[in-house]
Amino acid sequence: MAASPEVKALFFDVFGTLVDWRRGVAGQAEATLAPLGFNLDWPAFADAWRGEYQVGMEEVRSGRIPFSRLDIIHRRNLDRILPRFGLAGLPEPVLLDLNLAWHRLDAWPDATAGLERLHANFLCAPVSNGNISLLVDLSRRNGFLFDAILGAELAGDYKPKPRVYLAAAEAFDLPPEACMMVAAHSSDLAAAATCGLRTAHIARPDEHGSGGAGESAPSHPVDFAAANLLDLADLLGA
Amino acid sequence: MAASPEVKALFFDVFGTLVDWRRGVAGQAEATLAPLGFNLDWPAFADAWRGEYQVGMEEVRSGRIPFSRLDIIHRRNLDRILPRFGLAGLPEPVLLDLNLAWHRLDAWPDATAGLERLHANFLCAPVSNGNISLLVDLSRRNGFLFDAILGAELAGDYKPKPRVYLAAAEAFDLPPEACMMVAAHSSDLAAAATCGLRTAHIARPDEHGSGGAGESAPSHPVDFAAANLLDLADLLGA
Repeated sequence: MAASPEVKALFFDVFGTLVDWRRGVAGQAEATLAPLGFNLDWPAFADAWRGEYQVGMEEVRSGRIPFSRLDIIHRRNLDRILPRFGLAGLPEPVLLDLNLAWHRLDAWPDATAGLERLHANFLCAPVSNGNISLLVDLSRRNGFLFDAILGAELAGDYKPKPRVYLAAAEAFDLPPEACMMVAAHSSDLAAAATCGLRTAHIARPDEHGSGGAGESAPSHPVDFAAANLLDLADLLGA
Repeated sequence: MAASPEVKALFFDVFGTLVDWRRGVAGQAEATLAPLGFNLDWPAFADAWRGEYQVGMEEVRSGRIPFSRLDIIHRRNLDRILPRFGLAGLPEPVLLDLNLAWHRLDAWPDATAGLERLHANFLCAPVSNGNISLLVDLSRRNGFLFDAILGAELAGDYKPKPRVYLAAAEAFDLPPEACMMVAAHSSDLAAAATCGLRTAHIARPDEHGSGGAGESAPSHPVDFAAANLLDLADLLGA
């Protein structure tokens, strides 16, 4: 059996793994809409918006529509849920601003410091379904250190399609085995493993709120299972 | 006349503008080949290799061959010039290593500190014909601060084709007028201006050696003409 090559690059899922999308979207929706007189169940609004996420991307993955960036899909999904929350007819500038909530999410408390340690030892890039400008905004906001923005926009398709993971490894001139996908979602890691990448699971039990409905442990075998990014840095000797 | 939007992003040419390719390639060729008993005119070797640069990319730009990364084109160009320098028959590992000389170039003395100041005030990305892994290696080596790696590999074509400049602006969700191309080559800036970008020229009289054959001033009108990146930071109030 050939020895596995050393891991040179870490690829990060972003929504849920590095940033707390639910609290961020709920908080920004409230900040934007409460002054206009709306009083919603804000976390439910965030959940409903995120609930359309896979549906919107599946249209691209299946080839029914050409690739379009996540900002476009987020906007389409927003338009879809507005009537459910009594928000139909909001002015266009409000909708444009609301759609940028995904660009203004805050990191989990360990993420920035963990990334800094990992970046000192590995090439680091997001391999997210988010578009480049969204990831640049999240990085600037949270001080994330990345070497490049890889992922869906570079690959022209959405995870968990193999092309997204493989295009990221190719962009770094690395075999898949020298790359490790880091994510809080077992399905993402299982798809990456199928492409030959190594895998690290990050526990984010609070991704869907304090009820613990997020993954606290991987449901598939992974190379590393970490409590957070600082723990991953410990596990990788970074 | 509509007011120009504020510049939000700076796009950097890399070879010649941020890094001294001629000294770097010459020095690394010497470091690799002199121990094997070769004694060439090392700067002439670097010039000959770079001399094939536009020829190799023109095959892609013209559509004669599909897009291939600059590493591939550099290797093809290297193979083309080897016989001229009595280097035919070098072992493959030596050629592979030599081709990576372009990943190991050193910055001009002002570049890293200038980029740091500019990065504090603008989104910054290379918009180079170099591939992503090459630019990541140059960034790590020289401490360049970039928000993303844009350019040829993202666009699937080579400068000065308009698609490369426009794809970079689109990746940042910006109109071309909010982006400024920064380069030591007037032809690059003229092509960017045709796409609507603003332009900043960097004087690099020593790009082709101490004879001053590099551009010390732009040959087309530009928005800013700077002596180096620190001077550009002064001019832009960064």
